[in-house]
Amino acid sequence: MKLAGIGELPLLEKLRDRFSRNKAGILLGIGDDAAAIRPSALPLLLTTDMMVGGVHFDLSYTTPYQVGFKLVTVNVSDIYAMGGTPQYLLLDFGAPGTMEMKSFTRLFDGVEDAMRLYGVSLVGGDISSAGELVLSATVVGRGEKVLRRSGARAGDRIYVTGHLGDSACGHALLKKMKRPIEIERGKKMLLPRLPWSVIRPLVARHLLPTAVRPGRYVAAASAMMDISDGLLIDLSRLCRESGVGAVVYEEGIPVSDELRAASAYLRRDPLEFAAAGGEDYELLFTSPRRGVAGAFCVGEITERGLMMKDRQGRVRKISARGYRHFGIQG
Amino acid sequence: MKLAGIGELPLLEKLRDRFSRNKAGILLGIGDDAAAIRPSALPLLLTTDMMVGGVHFDLSYTTPYQVGFKLVTVNVSDIYAMGGTPQYLLLDFGAPGTMEMKSFTRLFDGVEDAMRLYGVSLVGGDISSAGELVLSATVVGRGEKVLRRSGARAGDRIYVTGHLGDSACGHALLKKMKRPIEIERGKKMLLPRLPWSVIRPLVARHLLPTAVRPGRYVAAASAMMDISDGLLIDLSRLCRESGVGAVVYEEGIPVSDELRAASAYLRRDPLEFAAAGGEDYELLFTSPRRGVAGAFCVGEITERGLMMKDRQGRVRKISARGYRHFGIQG
Repeated sequence: MKLAGIGELPLLEKLRDRFSRNKAGILLGIGDDAAAIRPSALPLLLTTDMMVGGVHFDLSYTTPYQVGFKLVTVNVSDIYAMGGTPQYLLLDFGAPGTMEMKSFTRLFDGVEDAMRLYGVSLVGGDISSAGELVLSATVVGRGEKVLRRSGARAGDRIYVTGHLGDSACGHALLKKMKRPIEIERGKKMLLPRLPWSVIRPLVARHLLPTAVRPGRYVAAASAMMDISDGLLIDLSRLCRESGVGAVVYEEGIPVSDELRAASAYLRRDPLEFAAAGGEDYELLFTSPRRGVAGAFCVGEITERGLMMKDRQGRVRKISARGYRHFGIQG
Repeated sequence: MKLAGIGELPLLEKLRDRFSRNKAGILLGIGDDAAAIRPSALPLLLTTDMMVGGVHFDLSYTTPYQVGFKLVTVNVSDIYAMGGTPQYLLLDFGAPGTMEMKSFTRLFDGVEDAMRLYGVSLVGGDISSAGELVLSATVVGRGEKVLRRSGARAGDRIYVTGHLGDSACGHALLKKMKRPIEIERGKKMLLPRLPWSVIRPLVARHLLPTAVRPGRYVAAASAMMDISDGLLIDLSRLCRESGVGAVVYEEGIPVSDELRAASAYLRRDPLEFAAAGGEDYELLFTSPRRGVAGAFCVGEITERGLMMKDRQGRVRKISARGYRHFGIQG
C-alpha cells in the first residue's frame, strides 16, 4: 500500500490516534489549528532543523526508522546545547505518493522511540506530497540557565562530552556498503576483514545518534553548543560568537578504538574524522574549570585565531573545515 | 548569482543580519543552537505548515515574494483561528542550488513584509539544498482564550468573516495565464474580455492572502477555525470535532461581485469556488448569537449530518469536498 492510495487525511488521523496521549501541560494537542500548551515560568527555547533525502540522508543506506529517529535527535540536541529540556515536537513530513505505507509507519516508529527517549510529545505537524522525502521538525523546550555560544573567555578550557568522528567514519563505512541495515532490529552488516564489533558502534552513531543531556555540564559551562558540522567548524563558530580564539590539542581529541581500527581499514586519518567529520551530536563547551568530570579537554580559549597543537608540540594555524550545503567553502 | 555559488553559511549570515532586530521578549534570536524567549503567563500556541513547490504553489505563475508572504500567512492564520496572537516564526528553507540569489532575496522580502503585517519576529531557521523549493514554518503565539474546533453546539449559527471562493477563482485564472505576475509591484495581467478590476482582487487573494484577526469575533465564538481546504470540508471537520451536524444556507455564502463575473467568464459555478475551493484563509466560527457584526451567517449547527439548503428551500445531504494531498477522497 502506497501513501497515494491512502490520502493525507487518513494519514493525519493515524498520527493523531498514535500520538494523542497528551501529557500534563498540553491543553490541546494534534488536531486543531494549533496546539495549546500551559505556560511555564522558565524561558522558552525554540529550534528547528530540516532533513532532505539525498542531502542529509540517503535511503540507499538508511532505513526510514533511522531517518525518523535522527530527525528528533538533531533537534533535541539543539535544545540540550542551550542547557535546556526538550518538551514538545512539531513535525512536517513531505514524501512522494509512491512511498510505501510500511516505510511511513517505520519512520514514525523511529520518531516515537526518540520521543520516548527524550521525553518529548508530538503536538502538531503537517503532511504533504513532495518530490523527495523531506522532513522538518521544531522542538520547543524550557531552559533554567540559557547557555549561549557567546560566553567563552580567554583562558577557559574547551571540552567535548564524548568520542568524536565515529559518526563520520560510520558514514564512510555505509557508503562502501550502499545498503540499509536495520541495526534497530539487530541486523548486521558485513565487510571483509572488519569485525562487526568495530562496525556496529560507528554505523550506530551515524544512523541512530543520541543527543547528550547537558545536566552535569551546565553548572561548569561558560558557553555551549552541539557538534553537528565537525569539531573545528563548530568551535570556530563558538569562538566567533564569543569574540575569542582557540588552540586545539590534537592529542586531547577523544578517539574511540573502533574509529582507529576502521580508519586504518579505510586508509584514512582518524583525526580527519574526529576534527572535521561532523554529525557527532556531542556537546562542545568551555569552562574556566581545569577539569570537568565526564568531559574531555580538547584545548583552550585564547585571545584570537584558531590553532592546532600537534603531538610534537608544534602549533599551526588551521581552517575550519566541515560539511556545507550549497558547496564547500574554504 | 545562484545559491550554490554562495553557500549555506553566507546565506544564514544574510538572514541573521536582516532579521536580527530583536524585539522585547526575545532573549536570544537567530544564530545560536536555539532561540530563547521570555516566558508569558498566557497559554502557548504552536502551529506548523509546510509548502512544497508543485504542490502548494507553482512557480510558473507565482513569484518567490508571493511564496514567502503566503507561507507566513497560512501559519499566522492558524494562530488567529485559535483566537490567539502570533509572535515568533521559525522557517526552514530548502531549494536547488540553481535557484537565483535574487529569488531567495525576494522570497524573504515576502516573508519580511508578512512578518511586519502580523507583528511576528523570525527567531530561527534552517537552510538546505533540496531537489525542489520546500518551505516549512512554525509560528508560536499566545492565546488568552483558546478557541477550539470542538465547542460548537446544536442551535449555534455558523459564520464566516469574508467572501469565499475568490482565492480558488484567482487560482483558476492564473492557471489560464501560466505566468507569474508581480502584483506586489503593481504589475497587471491581461485576459481577453475580463477587466483588471475583476482579476486583481481574485488573484491577489490567491497569491498574497492575508490572515483575518480574530479580535472582534472571539467573545462571540463557541468554536473557530480557518478555512484552508474549503468551507464544506473545513466545516465538516469542525462538526466532527464538536460531535454535531450542520445545515449550510446556499444563499448565505458570501460571494464577491468579482467572483461572479470571473465565474461567468470561466463558465464555472461561483458556489463551487465558494463552498469547495479552499485557501480562503477567512475564519469560520460558530456562535449562539443570532448575529455577529462583520461576519456572514452561512448556516446553523444541527444534531448530525451535513446538509445544504438551496435558494428554493430544498435541503440535501452534501459531502465535504476539498483539496487533498495524496489524491482525492469522497
